[in-house]
Amino acid sequence: MNKYSLFVKFNIQEGERDTMVDILLEAAESMKNLDECEIYLVNISENEPNCVYIYEVWSNENAHQASLTLEATQTLIKKAKPIITGMERISTLQTKGGKGL
Amino acid sequence: MNKYSLFVKFNIQEGERDTMVDILLEAAESMKNLDECEIYLVNISENEPNCVYIYEVWSNENAHQASLTLEATQTLIKKAKPIITGMERISTLQTKGGKGL
Repeated sequence: MNKYSLFVKFNIQEGERDTMVDILLEAAESMKNLDECEIYLVNISENEPNCVYIYEVWSNENAHQASLTLEATQTLIKKAKPIITGMERISTLQTKGGKGL
Repeated sequence: MNKYSLFVKFNIQEGERDTMVDILLEAAESMKNLDECEIYLVNISENEPNCVYIYEVWSNENAHQASLTLEATQTLIKKAKPIITGMERISTLQTKGGKGL
């Protein structure tokens, strides 16, 4: 098995973390019918009040790239942009398998 | 929703990455019947030949702690120990939801 995975950190304006979580949960919802998006999880960290983390698994890299051009994605990016102060792709990975796929 | 998630990096002895992937896939297999372990994914990174990453989601922190004392886990830790040169918990997270849970 060779899936394409990303672990991404967003820095968010103070007080706007919950808004960002909601926007990303909406993004996850919009991918419910997108088979190539296998996992898309929205996380926060107790010690970092201005951050949101995503862990996502895609069937392949192209599927991820293509998703960025979808109308639903574009709408959500527009919505999130004003409250995002930074973004860091912590890891780009190949998922070899495990529980949950 | 408030799940307990971990993103962990293992440093592995040169040439032993595939062995480590196999050990961790075995660990994932042993958790197939453990409902509280919801996701346990084994990943590698193209640019880091001596690393393996795990992303895991648990129902709660206690379930994760308890899993470390299981016989199956202990056996796998014993097996992996000789080839592990380092371990870093990159993130401890609360998963708020998304696709795949």
